[in-house]
Amino acid sequence: MPDRIIATYRVALTTGDSLEKKAQAIALGQTVGAWTPVPSANPATWERHRGEVVDATSLDEGAAGVVRIAFPVANCEGDLPTILTMTFGKVSLDGRIKLVDLDLPTTLLTQFPGPKFGIEGLRERLGQPAQSALGLGHRGKLAGQPDQPLTMAIFKPCLGLTPPQLGEMFYQLGSGGLDLVKDDEILPDVPDTPTLQRLEACLKAAERIKRETHRTVLYAVNLTGRPQQLRQRALTFQSLGATCFLFNVLAYGWAVFQELTADPAIQVPFLAHPALAGGLCGAPDYGMSYVLVLGKLMRLAGADIVLYPAHYGTFPFPAEEECGIRDALRAPATPLKRAWPGPSVGIHPGMVPQLLADYGNDVVINAGGGIHGHPDGPAAGARAMVQAVELALRGQRFAAGLPTGFPELEKAIATWGVC
Amino acid sequence: MPDRIIATYRVALTTGDSLEKKAQAIALGQTVGAWTPVPSANPATWERHRGEVVDATSLDEGAAGVVRIAFPVANCEGDLPTILTMTFGKVSLDGRIKLVDLDLPTTLLTQFPGPKFGIEGLRERLGQPAQSALGLGHRGKLAGQPDQPLTMAIFKPCLGLTPPQLGEMFYQLGSGGLDLVKDDEILPDVPDTPTLQRLEACLKAAERIKRETHRTVLYAVNLTGRPQQLRQRALTFQSLGATCFLFNVLAYGWAVFQELTADPAIQVPFLAHPALAGGLCGAPDYGMSYVLVLGKLMRLAGADIVLYPAHYGTFPFPAEEECGIRDALRAPATPLKRAWPGPSVGIHPGMVPQLLADYGNDVVINAGGGIHGHPDGPAAGARAMVQAVELALRGQRFAAGLPTGFPELEKAIATWGVC
Repeated sequence: MPDRIIATYRVALTTGDSLEKKAQAIALGQTVGAWTPVPSANPATWERHRGEVVDATSLDEGAAGVVRIAFPVANCEGDLPTILTMTFGKVSLDGRIKLVDLDLPTTLLTQFPGPKFGIEGLRERLGQPAQSALGLGHRGKLAGQPDQPLTMAIFKPCLGLTPPQLGEMFYQLGSGGLDLVKDDEILPDVPDTPTLQRLEACLKAAERIKRETHRTVLYAVNLTGRPQQLRQRALTFQSLGATCFLFNVLAYGWAVFQELTADPAIQVPFLAHPALAGGLCGAPDYGMSYVLVLGKLMRLAGADIVLYPAHYGTFPFPAEEECGIRDALRAPATPLKRAWPGPSVGIHPGMVPQLLADYGNDVVINAGGGIHGHPDGPAAGARAMVQAVELALRGQRFAAGLPTGFPELEKAIATWGVC
Repeated sequence: MPDRIIATYRVALTTGDSLEKKAQAIALGQTVGAWTPVPSANPATWERHRGEVVDATSLDEGAAGVVRIAFPVANCEGDLPTILTMTFGKVSLDGRIKLVDLDLPTTLLTQFPGPKFGIEGLRERLGQPAQSALGLGHRGKLAGQPDQPLTMAIFKPCLGLTPPQLGEMFYQLGSGGLDLVKDDEILPDVPDTPTLQRLEACLKAAERIKRETHRTVLYAVNLTGRPQQLRQRALTFQSLGATCFLFNVLAYGWAVFQELTADPAIQVPFLAHPALAGGLCGAPDYGMSYVLVLGKLMRLAGADIVLYPAHYGTFPFPAEEECGIRDALRAPATPLKRAWPGPSVGIHPGMVPQLLADYGNDVVINAGGGIHGHPDGPAAGARAMVQAVELALRGQRFAAGLPTGFPELEKAIATWGVC
């Protein structure tokens, strides 16, 4: 049996539709296009390219169904553009159909880069476990624990500030104890805040934090530009000391992303942003599942960290999608390294115990307003977040009140409550 | 007033939602992120980057609304990845919201390539009006008419045939009178049918048609590969005589597509396929509109011809979306050349009078099964399609019966009827 890709679809049916016929139409329409070899075709070649229905299961009393189709790997070029065109290109236009999952055979998986650093590699870059304390006293008690969760802040606001202002903000956030600070995804390379200048300003701030506290804080700088420039920009930023790249994967396309992540000359982790994913994944009956796009495909294509809305947060995001993304990013049984889940949007310190209960320690806790909106400012917000992690790791639940010595966290909880 | 991009959204509201608040949240959330400048921000800079609500109109008794937001051009890099991230990146994840339209100022429009050939340029390539007869006798009567519609066939099947078999199919279709023959979008560069070999086979067939009938038939060969290879492959194919490129734009991304179309070294027209568009545009409350994606953005990014499902056809496609795409591709009042609409999927000769009534003559009539499924085979199917165009241009409606001398069209109508 040749290698095959199994695509899983959810199809909505209307009265009179036959699920089995629909399944056959996908299997043949997306491959050889006909039920039997045309007279001119070689039957063996035709057979080699034919799609096949694996199974079709009726749902919702016949109003929908789940269909699995096996596609020969021989029909694609082993890259996401041809895999997606093969499995979902034209059929995406045929009414209410959603591509829920893609299962790639190991021979094909190994042709994808996957994360270059992944969970373990990024911890090494951050100096864990040696640097596990984050130098903040509280966290010192956990020194040596090798698998601490990571904390990240987003620059807020981003547009409208100068590079020195962002450098100063980086210093406040990073010296507050965070592991990463990221650009807002809507801050590209604009004259008021050129990427190169903010990179220099933030790397300088990171050096200062390193000198003062011996801690490494990564800066996820937004990598933008025309496809042919991206590699050179990445290499230039790397030569200046860039420590992480933020990338709007869906805006630039899988193929462009994968060329960057697979490039052996680029030794900088990638943080994938979910920008535009709602348009592709939000609808129940159309598009592709969040788990596939933000989980499986992001990891395949080489994201080290993937951001997505947490269901605790301010965006309406289903808990099961969140769990699915988390599991797809971290599942051990693949030849690809494991990637960091980054639940986001509306995260604040009071949510940390629940987040760690749901995620364990292999998680990047990412906050914007939940740090910047702290009554005493972003530095206090960063300290509150780090204190929350420290206490949660000790097993403390926040609802019952906090031990003394965590004033910033107390204020954060007074502001936003607990989850 | 600085240059601004106007984005139009359709938002669904639930009880208690305020349309005005939603609009403000988009305008600020996708730009400066806050209602007032943060203390550290320069008010002038902040103002320069702030989004603004143009208007917000309630629909469906308050169950939905249309919102227009003005985004400063200064917030993006003038390319589609940053424009789409700015207007729809994160907000796409915030519930039921659809990006319906983007209006770019002329200063920005002129930074996009648009079609290199467009409607007039492609006619020149095909030798119209000098070659207007298509050399088929019937069509000879229309010689000199400068604006004939174009006809195109898709290779069916595609996977499973060898390059010589496809070359022979090309000859049959092309000598039947068609203007273009295209690869199926699911046929990439695979060992059974390498792109280079089928290009050579089809160009040879095109030369033979040219020798025999003095007619030019273009071959839209599927351009695939890794982003860094695509330019070189396009140039190699061009040096071999390639006459048209089929490109799965959404699978590779706008940015990759635009780099190809804008490249002055590539002087070959691009045929954009709508693969994957259903996943992005099909849902009523999510994603982006078909008109924006397959109409406006395809033309901006440089498509000379755009395929999409016709509402007459076998896919459930709304007529108003089809009209919107057609108009966006051909609208005269922009600095960009006009592109060819290519209504597709389930097209057969009996639909031609209606198609020409709806489209006029600036249209590519594209058929797969409606040519290959002809009882007397693909060559007869091609002749039937050309006869249909010939008669429709003479003002003939098909329902009342045909004049004598159109036997292939008669059989096609007996098989599929009229529209």
